[in-house]
Amino acid sequence: MKQIESRDNALFKSFVRAANGKSRNQAWLEGVHLCQAWLQHGATPPQFAVFDTSRVDQSVEIQALYRAVPDQSKVLLASGLMKKLDQVEKGQGVGFIVAPPAAVIPEHIKETVLWLDRVQDPGNMGTLFRTAAAAGVGSVYCSTGCAAAWSPKVLRSAQGAHFSLTIHENCDLQALFNRLEVPLAAMTLQGSVSLYQAKLPHHIAWLAGNEGQGILPALEAIAQLKVYIPQASDIESLNVAAATAICLFEHRRRFLSGE
Amino acid sequence: MKQIESRDNALFKSFVRAANGKSRNQAWLEGVHLCQAWLQHGATPPQFAVFDTSRVDQSVEIQALYRAVPDQSKVLLASGLMKKLDQVEKGQGVGFIVAPPAAVIPEHIKETVLWLDRVQDPGNMGTLFRTAAAAGVGSVYCSTGCAAAWSPKVLRSAQGAHFSLTIHENCDLQALFNRLEVPLAAMTLQGSVSLYQAKLPHHIAWLAGNEGQGILPALEAIAQLKVYIPQASDIESLNVAAATAICLFEHRRRFLSGE
Repeated sequence: MKQIESRDNALFKSFVRAANGKSRNQAWLEGVHLCQAWLQHGATPPQFAVFDTSRVDQSVEIQALYRAVPDQSKVLLASGLMKKLDQVEKGQGVGFIVAPPAAVIPEHIKETVLWLDRVQDPGNMGTLFRTAAAAGVGSVYCSTGCAAAWSPKVLRSAQGAHFSLTIHENCDLQALFNRLEVPLAAMTLQGSVSLYQAKLPHHIAWLAGNEGQGILPALEAIAQLKVYIPQASDIESLNVAAATAICLFEHRRRFLSGE
Repeated sequence: MKQIESRDNALFKSFVRAANGKSRNQAWLEGVHLCQAWLQHGATPPQFAVFDTSRVDQSVEIQALYRAVPDQSKVLLASGLMKKLDQVEKGQGVGFIVAPPAAVIPEHIKETVLWLDRVQDPGNMGTLFRTAAAAGVGSVYCSTGCAAAWSPKVLRSAQGAHFSLTIHENCDLQALFNRLEVPLAAMTLQGSVSLYQAKLPHHIAWLAGNEGQGILPALEAIAQLKVYIPQASDIESLNVAAATAICLFEHRRRFLSGE
């Protein structure tokens, strides 16, 4: 177990970098829920389990986390230092430093996956991860230009979905098209087929695009399927995370019911 | 037309209050898109159309807005002042001050509506508005405890959906239940019926709850229908805005196809 008293401590400084999303190899899981989710799903203990000294005994959940992690991972922060790591206004006094799991892209992509093309808003990214996990989609491929998947805002918005998914970052989606053995379905505003009339294969690669610009034209052009969601006329399009939820669950509905 | 040079100007100070969500009677519509949407849907010109003097000629869109509003609404801000109103990092140099439309709750609620119980996150609120508008739902009822509907963050996230909806704020939803002439359908984690098996009437009041706590038990208890979304097991529940998108569009799908 380590104790840190000074903000000049080198280890503490590395935590600050991770908490600000400035570390390539370390992510900061802030708060009880994300730490619990990591332990529930994660194969390895956290690199560091960081506790506010003055608040370890404050709640049953924090005590349980404290007991669940090995002693050599534990770091006790002197009061005041935790505030430097908190990304939310009222931090809970606990967080894990973890290495994002390495993800190897398979040679052949044969299952239902979600492809994200330059989704920029961290809240949208996190919601998309959460929706994919809930829909039973196991892998998400994020293009270069997407928000950093393991940044604190994306982690917070995904509520632990990261640990149920295989997340591939900085993908060249056009190059990966060759590995795709399931049809690529672009969600577009002006698709050729209504989602509700489209024939959806059991395994499919869903493709969602940037909030403002949509899907890169070159990528949309190679998609075998283009679907739109029939919505009220003269109305602004749906948010990308809402549109994706509708498509993923329409797909799920069909195969749940054996339709 | 007015010109404001000083940050001590009383009118400018009132703009700052509105831009910070601190005004009860005025909302700040920031950026080209929201201003265009207001003009497209709004019955009245904005109270004030605020332009950064140095940027009026910077884009065709801003010039068009400048021409579209009456002279007495126009306010030109000296450079530097606009930054005090910008809620996003790179403001566009234009915004409208408007009075949120007054909404009178009907004696009898007979159409499909969306009820929100203490939805706290402004991004979720805005996405919910955007989804409701896209699904053709005309009215949203927000309980006391919801994020302020006309705050800048909710406006930004809703992308203009406010102007296609009738938005009721600070509602006592339990008291309003008496006015409801359509079934109230609570979206819950452990509902009694799967969304995909539920009989959904043509007109329905969808009820979504708080991000952490869900729907108030007393309110859930009076709902005629409780539906859950069948999702992958052992996975964190869906985000409230994603879950609502799935329900609203499943409902829309059924009546689009005449099912």
